[in-house]
Amino acid sequence: MPAGSYSIGLDLGGTNLRAAAVARDGRMLDRVSGKTAYSAGREAIVGDMVEAILTLRERLGAAGLAGIGVAVPGFILLEEGVIRNSNNLASLEDFPIRDEISRLLGTQVILENDANAAALGEKWIGAGRGVEDLVLLTLGTGIGGGIVSNGKVLHGFLGMAGELGHITVVPNGNPCGCGNRGCVEKHASATAVTAMAKLLGLGDGLTAKQVYDLALAGSEKAGAIFVSMGEALGIALAMLVNTFNFPLYLLSGGVLGAWDLFAPAMFEETRRRSFTFRTTDTRIEKAALGNEAGLYGAAYLPWM
Amino acid sequence: MPAGSYSIGLDLGGTNLRAAAVARDGRMLDRVSGKTAYSAGREAIVGDMVEAILTLRERLGAAGLAGIGVAVPGFILLEEGVIRNSNNLASLEDFPIRDEISRLLGTQVILENDANAAALGEKWIGAGRGVEDLVLLTLGTGIGGGIVSNGKVLHGFLGMAGELGHITVVPNGNPCGCGNRGCVEKHASATAVTAMAKLLGLGDGLTAKQVYDLALAGSEKAGAIFVSMGEALGIALAMLVNTFNFPLYLLSGGVLGAWDLFAPAMFEETRRRSFTFRTTDTRIEKAALGNEAGLYGAAYLPWM
Repeated sequence: MPAGSYSIGLDLGGTNLRAAAVARDGRMLDRVSGKTAYSAGREAIVGDMVEAILTLRERLGAAGLAGIGVAVPGFILLEEGVIRNSNNLASLEDFPIRDEISRLLGTQVILENDANAAALGEKWIGAGRGVEDLVLLTLGTGIGGGIVSNGKVLHGFLGMAGELGHITVVPNGNPCGCGNRGCVEKHASATAVTAMAKLLGLGDGLTAKQVYDLALAGSEKAGAIFVSMGEALGIALAMLVNTFNFPLYLLSGGVLGAWDLFAPAMFEETRRRSFTFRTTDTRIEKAALGNEAGLYGAAYLPWM
Repeated sequence: MPAGSYSIGLDLGGTNLRAAAVARDGRMLDRVSGKTAYSAGREAIVGDMVEAILTLRERLGAAGLAGIGVAVPGFILLEEGVIRNSNNLASLEDFPIRDEISRLLGTQVILENDANAAALGEKWIGAGRGVEDLVLLTLGTGIGGGIVSNGKVLHGFLGMAGELGHITVVPNGNPCGCGNRGCVEKHASATAVTAMAKLLGLGDGLTAKQVYDLALAGSEKAGAIFVSMGEALGIALAMLVNTFNFPLYLLSGGVLGAWDLFAPAMFEETRRRSFTFRTTDTRIEKAALGNEAGLYGAAYLPWM
């Protein structure tokens, strides 16, 4: 391939590892998945990451490679290239992962938080195409956030910006691992849906999808869970709209399948709490790339 | 004066109008105040603004004038140069104030929201000197917000960003004119202090200073008001820290005189609710320029 014609992105998700070679225009040229269980520890995970990247580089040729981007969960200290406070990847905590991967590959890699990468992916070739300013909320086990301002990820001075899952929406609400209470991720994530279902006696360990199906089947309790989720999201979104006045706010994650049940409460709450939302053409929409957004965003990093 | 050696800033405050000629290095060269009551209506206010600017331009000479910045309260539609939803200046609502002043002066002026201008002033020659990323909260009748990102005011797509007084801190708290309930400005402004004092039977229409004096004199109720205020501020600040990861958050306004009474609760709440604040060198401090910040910031606009 000609020089700089493709990049490699790697997304180290909470449960699996994926890497892709992506062309400058966003076409995915090739992809591989990791095979190592995270429980195997740091060396195995890093080895798997490096192997995935090497596989793609070999297949497509080093000559055409523009660069390598790596998305990982957790707070990232950008300058140091270190993950800090990642609930899912305890073995990588405070480990200089960027420099270690670079050393093993013999070339630089760019490290980014996974939700930031997902926001960038959506901006590049997803629901935010052509938009220079947007916020993405990823609704999953927790809630991640990515802020794209003026076409670039908003990092803050250490790289820890966009921790939007920890916006307080219920001052004395459910406790969170971050030390806070009432974080939006404890009231509007897929995990929160599961927890509320248990609290209402609907069942233990139900998935958000199962709760959704119960609601469709007529369960008022299940329906109320999505209203509660929508209200929590609305409080957070109104705050974001009032703060940023960006034109676009995107939501992603499997729980989006329940959009028709939580979105009405979410929009109502956002309208009520944001003069800006009520009176301007501000969009809150579903993201387009699903769980591929972080992978694309990671691949976009070398072209930022 | 040599070409471009000074600028004129005008701050149309909620209760008075001030204008100043300021040198490029931040020295105030001259200043004037308006004399027109706002109740006199739109034409009189605009006439007063123009007269203040003309007076300074005449005194210092048109040759040296780099430009003119005007700070006004309320939501501003940047492109149109129009104030939208200003509680204090109903007569200027939806009026093309920027173009009208420009027409009367025969030269361009730059319009900015007053809290944004204050944030810019603090960044230029105040407590944010040398800092490229900061948030300012102005605690007064309401609470205004200004966000400086990468050295520039964060405007959003219409110019309405930074409406931080309308962050929800109590989901079903005090109603706000914006349509929301529990806005931080209804729980932590000088007005909120006065309202809480009334609710606690301390007196009608007490100023924040009077409530402060009561607390110093031993009133537990008065003391609790500032704790409540500090907690509300802490919820909002934690959200801002988690969102922006900026190094500096500034507070301004007369109620800062009560800092020793509200700041402990504010810091405790921010620490509890923000992992980033607890674990990094993030500063929450008093602003330095008092109610001159908007005036300096307005004067800085031509040099942005």
